[in-house]
Amino acid sequence: MASTPVTRDTINPKVLECEYAVRGEIVILAQKLQEDLKNNPESHPFDEILYCNIGNPQSLGQKPITFFREVLALCDHPALLDKSETHSLFSDDSIKRASQILSQIPGQATGAYSHSQGVKGLRDTIAAGIGARDGFPSDPNDIFLTDGASPAVHMMMQLLIRSEKDGILCPIPQYPLYSASIALHGGTLVPYYLDEATGWGLEISELKKQLETAKSKGICVRALVVINPGNPTGQVLAENNQKQIVEFCKKEGLVLLADEVYQENVYVPDKKFYSFKKVARSMGYGEKDITLVSFQSVSKGYYGECGKRGGYMEITGFSPEVREQIYKLASVNLCSNISGQILASLVMSPPKAGDQCYESYSAEKNAILSSLAKRAQQLEHALNGLEGVSCNRAEGAMYLFPRIELPKKAVEAAKAAKTAPDTFYARRLLNATGIVVVPGSGFGQAAGTLHFRCTILPQEDRIPAIISRLTKFHEAFMKEFRD
Amino acid sequence: MASTPVTRDTINPKVLECEYAVRGEIVILAQKLQEDLKNNPESHPFDEILYCNIGNPQSLGQKPITFFREVLALCDHPALLDKSETHSLFSDDSIKRASQILSQIPGQATGAYSHSQGVKGLRDTIAAGIGARDGFPSDPNDIFLTDGASPAVHMMMQLLIRSEKDGILCPIPQYPLYSASIALHGGTLVPYYLDEATGWGLEISELKKQLETAKSKGICVRALVVINPGNPTGQVLAENNQKQIVEFCKKEGLVLLADEVYQENVYVPDKKFYSFKKVARSMGYGEKDITLVSFQSVSKGYYGECGKRGGYMEITGFSPEVREQIYKLASVNLCSNISGQILASLVMSPPKAGDQCYESYSAEKNAILSSLAKRAQQLEHALNGLEGVSCNRAEGAMYLFPRIELPKKAVEAAKAAKTAPDTFYARRLLNATGIVVVPGSGFGQAAGTLHFRCTILPQEDRIPAIISRLTKFHEAFMKEFRD
Repeated sequence: MASTPVTRDTINPKVLECEYAVRGEIVILAQKLQEDLKNNPESHPFDEILYCNIGNPQSLGQKPITFFREVLALCDHPALLDKSETHSLFSDDSIKRASQILSQIPGQATGAYSHSQGVKGLRDTIAAGIGARDGFPSDPNDIFLTDGASPAVHMMMQLLIRSEKDGILCPIPQYPLYSASIALHGGTLVPYYLDEATGWGLEISELKKQLETAKSKGICVRALVVINPGNPTGQVLAENNQKQIVEFCKKEGLVLLADEVYQENVYVPDKKFYSFKKVARSMGYGEKDITLVSFQSVSKGYYGECGKRGGYMEITGFSPEVREQIYKLASVNLCSNISGQILASLVMSPPKAGDQCYESYSAEKNAILSSLAKRAQQLEHALNGLEGVSCNRAEGAMYLFPRIELPKKAVEAAKAAKTAPDTFYARRLLNATGIVVVPGSGFGQAAGTLHFRCTILPQEDRIPAIISRLTKFHEAFMKEFRD
Repeated sequence: MASTPVTRDTINPKVLECEYAVRGEIVILAQKLQEDLKNNPESHPFDEILYCNIGNPQSLGQKPITFFREVLALCDHPALLDKSETHSLFSDDSIKRASQILSQIPGQATGAYSHSQGVKGLRDTIAAGIGARDGFPSDPNDIFLTDGASPAVHMMMQLLIRSEKDGILCPIPQYPLYSASIALHGGTLVPYYLDEATGWGLEISELKKQLETAKSKGICVRALVVINPGNPTGQVLAENNQKQIVEFCKKEGLVLLADEVYQENVYVPDKKFYSFKKVARSMGYGEKDITLVSFQSVSKGYYGECGKRGGYMEITGFSPEVREQIYKLASVNLCSNISGQILASLVMSPPKAGDQCYESYSAEKNAILSSLAKRAQQLEHALNGLEGVSCNRAEGAMYLFPRIELPKKAVEAAKAAKTAPDTFYARRLLNATGIVVVPGSGFGQAAGTLHFRCTILPQEDRIPAIISRLTKFHEAFMKEFRD
């Protein structure tokens, strides 16, 4: 009698292979420590856990944008729109926008499944927003609304990967959703290394080299993943570099999978976000020249609405037959959640100058973005002041990815503890300070180098204390293990 | 130069294999006709499309439960809780519940990613609700909150299926999410046939026979899917039958995948819903005896909140090592949407007798359920009155699955039109009446039989008109093709 039909040895081996360090062992330990603190506030040398492992702004106190939340609340409970008291609780703009959105949803039914690609009216709004951003039109039929960007990435991997002989070019370091999704779909991750020395530069020569190496191993490379602004590396690509990437994908027949979820997160005056679609179109390349997917999410930007699970992908350059298959994949899951769909339309079409609530909306938005820029700078500066640590600037996104040189004795201690040296460091940091970071090995890193990823998301008034805790820990660590 | 790197021939063949008729060709045609009507209301012999293809109550006018929506709106915009005007717009119970839920979410941050399994406090509420329903306790650590039930089903298929040599026993007819998910994960659907003659009875002898047949072909059968109440078939299993199924799974070492999303949709006094967990526990079988997954969703029941994409699975009987892998799968997608999570907690813990809003809540709930029962009966009666049509009663769920005997001439006409006879019928029905149903072939049916699935969801006052349109169409169809 088989009483336990499912064991670790009998499950899908692709599940075993897949790794996702952003919520891996360090985070599981952090949750345990948090439980300890709840039961006994004196149990550790800190009074709270600071989750710097994940781009989750509102978990660290970032407030949502009022306009967005007002619209969501009204759409959740449309009966409010008929009540006079509503006008004293909600801005006129929110009431107007909610009414407009509800009129785009058949029967105002925010509780109904929508079209599998998302509510048509919301896709119209998003397409118009993309058009305004890029100066090139977008077709609402190219938009697929999804529960955050992750399901969209999975969908494309599912479409493209036939076997382990299919490869996807991914940056190293990379956001581990990509490695996890490629592993789950049984494909091969073809790495290309970003150059830390040039601020995580993306060299076409490196792409070519890795493509050729993969081909020589019999790998059919199908797509190139570019994350811009970078995760975990925080760099923002120069327009000229983007043109080279477009040219490369066109020439090699690769689908360009552009992770553009940090498009609103640029913190330096000398860099600007350009979508890959804008770049390709400005080069004169249309649907027939390049196959391009852009991923966007409501979880990032200044909005940071991670828990709402909204996002979309814009797909261009696919044949009608292949589109039909993508539509079918979307339809199997019926549709993404409507609140997330509404929010995706709002972030691509926020209040405009002249709108009554524009000033308060802008104030909220600018306060968040300028504070993020400041925090990025402060943390980068502090990290660069630590012995053996060097950190490129965070031009964009929500992360710093400092390189750490650990003493030999620390590396040996890690070995004795049967763990990677960066994990050893991250675990020590957590146990000493309550600060949660992700070891660089979770993202991939050049052989012989060690890093960790730390978000810039703790609130501004907390940064000095974090810097002081981090500095104190690092000094003690180095002292303990100095060669 | 490869300008179109992705073609139908070069995508993942598993995607091509997958089929999902619920949103398939008939629905795509319906969308086209709807577009026609928008441009020219006279373009077809009907003035609207009636989507009876999918269990999507609110798209056909069902109103959401007020209490649920009030709580959601307050959680979306917690600032409302500090305003005195809020008390004139929301019930005290809603305000109390929203405050309680927000206190369970760290930092009241409904815009933050939660724990990968869902907010712990909401899982506590759900576990308590399951315990109250079953009389056996549920552990919040067994609950995984998901964006509707579909992602949970995919997750289990991903876990269990290693190759085409792994089989999943599924009812025929079945809800095509199962066949689609099995195809996408590269496994083999092992069919077991429900017996139409005995009201879609589930015979253990049939399960045994199909299991043996599969084994003889070298298939390793890993799990048994049971949908109760049935989709598309609408039957409700007798407790004794459920005991036999539990015994069978235990003996054969199969994971029991129990689709229990229609647990609130039972319309006949002689049947009652029992969860498989309750049945197993009442037989004295615990964690070590049977591996069991129960799927639940906010999309069905009397709530019908499809667009909110909320749901959960309760997993029991898995080893800690396998649980860890399931957790990892959940963590790759970060978490399900928080509104859906909140709603899942509400449907498992609705207002109770004595609560201020209990009466109005109960009135809304009972009106929906008693009306659904009435509509099921009326439609069933009408269908059974049609020439060549026989229809089992809808004991539960949201569907009728009538059998149709088509004249030979109609079958030949279908053949000439290169389509299945049931699809031919459904297409004719749509073109003549605007009523959208799903051909039985989309669910699977015994060889030589034809069916269609029709929801019982159009509002009560529309039923007479639908019956009359359907009857008129059917009579004309039979007249046209009568042998």
